Amino acid sequence: MKFCSECGKSVVHRIPEGDNLPRFICEHCDIIHYQNPKLVVGCLPVWEDKVLLCKRAIEPSYGLWTLPAGFMENQESLEQAALRESDEEANANLKIDNLYSVISLPHINQIYVLFLAKLLDIDFYAGSESLDVRLFTQEEIPWNQLAFKTIENTLRHFFEDREKNHFPVHTSVISKRNRLGQLSD
Amino acid sequence: MKFCSECGKSVVHRIPEGDNLPRFICEHCDIIHYQNPKLVVGCLPVWEDKVLLCKRAIEPSYGLWTLPAGFMENQESLEQAALRESDEEANANLKIDNLYSVISLPHINQIYVLFLAKLLDIDFYAGSESLDVRLFTQEEIPWNQLAFKTIENTLRHFFEDREKNHFPVHTSVISKRNRLGQLSD
Repeated sequence: MKFCSECGKSVVHRIPEGDNLPRFICEHCDIIHYQNPKLVVGCLPVWEDKVLLCKRAIEPSYGLWTLPAGFMENQESLEQAALRESDEEANANLKIDNLYSVISLPHINQIYVLFLAKLLDIDFYAGSESLDVRLFTQEEIPWNQLAFKTIENTLRHFFEDREKNHFPVHTSVISKRNRLGQLSD
Repeated sequence: MKFCSECGKSVVHRIPEGDNLPRFICEHCDIIHYQNPKLVVGCLPVWEDKVLLCKRAIEPSYGLWTLPAGFMENQESLEQAALRESDEEANANLKIDNLYSVISLPHINQIYVLFLAKLLDIDFYAGSESLDVRLFTQEEIPWNQLAFKTIENTLRHFFEDREKNHFPVHTSVISKRNRLGQLSD
């Protein structure tokens, strides 16, 4: 951020009085422009013994497989965001079961929120952000071609939980340090 | 938003190609300035049969009681944000137990995420954003002087769940329509 989005004048970057972190401040408008993490919201769509994955048609991770998910918009609920993204990326007709995965990624200022969901039919097809959409059994999951660690984490939990038929919410933190290694959860 | 935060020139508000919502666009930088919901993160601190509430020293809801919570910062996890806010508002020394309340407020573009937490001692005291910090039994909760519906919702769930000694995650939506009425959860 270089300019105030309200008046167009240059901002300064310093710690405001009574605060303890540097912020972008417009000294003309007297506005502090806070910057906050973004929510990435989506679904883990289940059909019989299979899960739905989308092959990404956009960067980052073009050509790799992911769960339908994307940035939450203003004026929607988490559930609406999860269903909208699943519709946009996979034209998937879903019913949300429950909140399943809540993952903090502090190094990129993102929070993933993924819901378990039932596919209501198999009339899905790739949206403009997907090259392909397919159902995978556990054995078929392309573990080495998954787009993000959040997706691998969530799928591993799902197949473990399915053994016990118990699907509690999993919260975890994926930091830069452990991004390619062990998860904290 | 009136001006591009990167170049300081005026932005336009229109639907970008391939999108379906109007965005603030800088036609000089070719940047789309997305606007996304913010996370409000905090704790429900428990000590024996009591919970900790803070009396707000800031607007909105000055003078009303709330759980320690606030806007999540970049470069922190949900759990770090919850502990930081509890420290800032109540100087409370806490151990997080589990994720407890996830509430969408689409009409104000906020998502509340609250964790159940144990107070490790009772050396808490009001931070600069609190007029007072106190422990309340269920009977003592000032139900008519709670700052936000999210807080009432979470406290009601807590006392119900305590009867069963089972504290599952509660997800809900508080919309403008039902803000003062029944919750969806």
